[in-house]
Amino acid sequence: MEIRTGYADYNYTIHVDYGILKDCIFRYTASYNSVHFLVDQNVHALYKDGLLSFVQNPIILEGGEASKSFDAFKHITETLLERGIQRNHLVVVIGGGATGDAGGFAAATVLRGVDYIQVPTTLLAHDSSIGGKTAINSTHGKNLIGVFHRPKAVIYDLTFLETLPQHELLSGFGEVFKHALLKDEKTVKRLMDATSNGVSLDMMKPFIISGIETKMHYVTSDEKESGIRKYLNLGHTLGHAIEYKYKMPHGMAVVLGLYFMMFASNEEADRNIFDLDLFRQYFELHGYPLEQLGTIDEAEMMTLMGKDKKNQSTDATGFVLMHDFGQCYFTEIDSSQLKKYISQLKESL
Amino acid sequence: MEIRTGYADYNYTIHVDYGILKDCIFRYTASYNSVHFLVDQNVHALYKDGLLSFVQNPIILEGGEASKSFDAFKHITETLLERGIQRNHLVVVIGGGATGDAGGFAAATVLRGVDYIQVPTTLLAHDSSIGGKTAINSTHGKNLIGVFHRPKAVIYDLTFLETLPQHELLSGFGEVFKHALLKDEKTVKRLMDATSNGVSLDMMKPFIISGIETKMHYVTSDEKESGIRKYLNLGHTLGHAIEYKYKMPHGMAVVLGLYFMMFASNEEADRNIFDLDLFRQYFELHGYPLEQLGTIDEAEMMTLMGKDKKNQSTDATGFVLMHDFGQCYFTEIDSSQLKKYISQLKESL
Repeated sequence: MEIRTGYADYNYTIHVDYGILKDCIFRYTASYNSVHFLVDQNVHALYKDGLLSFVQNPIILEGGEASKSFDAFKHITETLLERGIQRNHLVVVIGGGATGDAGGFAAATVLRGVDYIQVPTTLLAHDSSIGGKTAINSTHGKNLIGVFHRPKAVIYDLTFLETLPQHELLSGFGEVFKHALLKDEKTVKRLMDATSNGVSLDMMKPFIISGIETKMHYVTSDEKESGIRKYLNLGHTLGHAIEYKYKMPHGMAVVLGLYFMMFASNEEADRNIFDLDLFRQYFELHGYPLEQLGTIDEAEMMTLMGKDKKNQSTDATGFVLMHDFGQCYFTEIDSSQLKKYISQLKESL
Repeated sequence: MEIRTGYADYNYTIHVDYGILKDCIFRYTASYNSVHFLVDQNVHALYKDGLLSFVQNPIILEGGEASKSFDAFKHITETLLERGIQRNHLVVVIGGGATGDAGGFAAATVLRGVDYIQVPTTLLAHDSSIGGKTAINSTHGKNLIGVFHRPKAVIYDLTFLETLPQHELLSGFGEVFKHALLKDEKTVKRLMDATSNGVSLDMMKPFIISGIETKMHYVTSDEKESGIRKYLNLGHTLGHAIEYKYKMPHGMAVVLGLYFMMFASNEEADRNIFDLDLFRQYFELHGYPLEQLGTIDEAEMMTLMGKDKKNQSTDATGFVLMHDFGQCYFTEIDSSQLKKYISQLKESL
């Protein structure tokens, strides 16, 4: 399966399938003088004698958020330079979302930008590897330092997902679920039916592809996030704060954020767009820790949300809410109202 | 005097004159929710009660290459975030070339890019502030980490130049001279006549403006440096190596690099395009340390030049040479030939 981006220029292909990695990479590397591989250490350990046996002399990244510190950024770029990277070289980044963010930022900045290919190895990375965002973390919040730098390709070999632990699968599924919400009610229903007995890899491929297509739609029409790309932040405003505070896997925190989004969307519309009981049961059945929402501190969450990049004001917090499945809108909720919603949500649990 | 860039989009104005800073800045700041000033500490010390008295609560940068370390980058971005920078805020970078590079890179990466204005305060920065290049340094060479990020404006208040020490003026003059070479023989002659009694600020304004226009021409037709923008590197390949090795002011090193460029251009063309004796006398009269060229180590220079971003090969080094005044070409000189040229140049001094 190949999905082609629809930008005005500098388009690229997202290849999605099982067992495609090696052939696909070689199709691209032929036109470069040299290739540098940045590989997550866990992925390297698991696949160095298998799927990645063709990878020579990789630069090993720590993996996870540790790859996204200033020190790691320095280490990656300095190592690439030590190895003599030049502008006609290619960087291939193999790993989860954090590895992709960090490796992408290094590729975007070394020599003021070299070409790179994203090879996501987690379910979550189906999301983060699309859209050209790269970033490292600040002490003030996640992804606060970065640039937009489109890859030359995304090669998504689903074979990698077979070794994912269940909590990683659940984390990635948070974004799959978000993409379904962004699409329409039918897709959400179909996804919930398909996962009624639990989240597993078997049934995921069509929903991954649909998610990538949905994300591409928003991203290509608004790369720099001045308009509708913001809708991809559905569930992320509170989600990021929870992720940061509780060190919870990203997609898990997003699910908690989505549940708050549903709650707030109902309140703002003064009608039941979302059947909260149904979604709460569904999320809890699959192992998402919704009970954590009962313990969050209003003031702390609001401070953390104030650091959100998309926030344009200090008295109110920008939120993406929904009029209906597939129909987002952006609104600013002022501080006292937001505090009230969080309190009400806590009580409702 | 206002010069407007000629890109397809995202154009900006370069304002050049005496005493324009405050009014000009206020014209831009009106449309932002907040402004963050990044100011070189030396410039701040000299002007905080004068030209910069309107600047409130600036973030002070160390100035010079110290601003361009990974640690300084971390400090600048973290401080901006600590102060609550948001996407609708403006960053104003006030200082020399290094401050502009470092401040520009911080503005380009914090929150994945916020708007910024360059306020160059040195003669050298008439060059570095045009073209949207931002960068920090690697242990492997200068400017090896960075991105392209166009400012919203460049405000070049020539009043700042009045306090420049003579060696700074000379360093900046190196780029002014390069821009004259890139334009035509008439401009070079006029510049040499105007400076026959030494380099001073009085006569510089028309040559600064002409230099900016020349640079804009190359930059707008080739922002990402795949073609003719390379010509702006005239004198810089060896220049950067000398600057790095001897910690010599940038424009001084560029003049030494220009002299080698003239030598190599003559050799490659097998005719005297440049009257080497004339230029050598002229450069030495003005205080450029051409004698340093007599002490450089061929092998070391070649290693350092191998780290140059524009280099596409390891067996040969890319150089910009000239067929004539105003007529550049790009060529690769292979290692043995390059070594020979450097040796011959050393002997000729």
